[in-house]
Amino acid sequence: MTLYPMKLVTVVTESLAREPLVRLLEEAGAHGYTLTHVEGAGAQGARFADMPESANIKFKVLVPPEAAARIFERLAAEFFPLYATVAYETDVRVVRAGKF
Amino acid sequence: MTLYPMKLVTVVTESLAREPLVRLLEEAGAHGYTLTHVEGAGAQGARFADMPESANIKFKVLVPPEAAARIFERLAAEFFPLYATVAYETDVRVVRAGKF
Amino acid sequence: MTLYPMKLVTVVTESLAREPLVRLLEEAGAHGYTLTHVEGAGAQGARFADMPESANIKFKVLVPPEAAARIFERLAAEFFPLYATVAYETDVRVVRAGKF
Repeated sequence: MTLYPMKLVTVVTESLAREPLVRLLEEAGAHGYTLTHVEGAGAQGARFADMPESANIKFKVLVPPEAAARIFERLAAEFFPLYATVAYETDVRVVRAGKF
Repeated sequence: MTLYPMKLVTVVTESLAREPLVRLLEEAGAHGYTLTHVEGAGAQGARFADMPESANIKFKVLVPPEAAARIFERLAAEFFPLYATVAYETDVRVVRAGKF
Repeated sequence: MTLYPMKLVTVVTESLAREPLVRLLEEAGAHGYTLTHVEGAGAQGARFADMPESANIKFKVLVPPEAAARIFERLAAEFFPLYATVAYETDVRVVRAGKF
């Protein structure tokens, strides 16, 4: 049993961005994803109480570092101007980079 | 495109703690959050089969290290005596510390 | 308030693997878990558009490194041959390794 270092890329965005995001992730080299529906609130300079909660989607993909960089570059160029989007990467060790 | 090192703070707690937790996170400096409903079970010294599953909420916020420390101090003082709560931080790199 | 370094183990698998996975996690030393229902798609060498999305379950447990290794060894031996499963670990710092 071996552990492989990989990047876990998390993208939280608006539900209507689902289809273009799945395409982007696949084109950038992801072989699978998980999708969770989350509630979210937030914006720089506003109070939580003044914001409506909105339904968002959270995608997670396990990719090598180069693919993470490709995802972030395309998100910054194509998604940030259009959708409220937050993206980040975490270092993980994967037992098998299989099905998802 | 730049990546910013930040702390991802995760708090799993009882559903009834939702409103005070949102207030605490905001006061500690979070600009947004995501909330997921999770099932959970667990307690030191009990067998899973003997425990009822309960509905819990999981909050995630992206914050600088000082804010993470403020959140943990307040959780330990104000939440741990009242609610079953687990909290932890992870190092992440954020593309844009924006909306959530 | 002290932070303890621990491993966050994430396992994404098929819904029908739920009961044996809970047993495995407990036997390996986990004192609690959270469970989220996620959608997922993926497989090496297939296009996302050609794959049906499936309902999966995602378990998270906080454990010491030895327990993480035990979980991964048993998953590789007992789950990978039977269920589409992905598992990985992340370094986290836990405020209190309590209830979950």
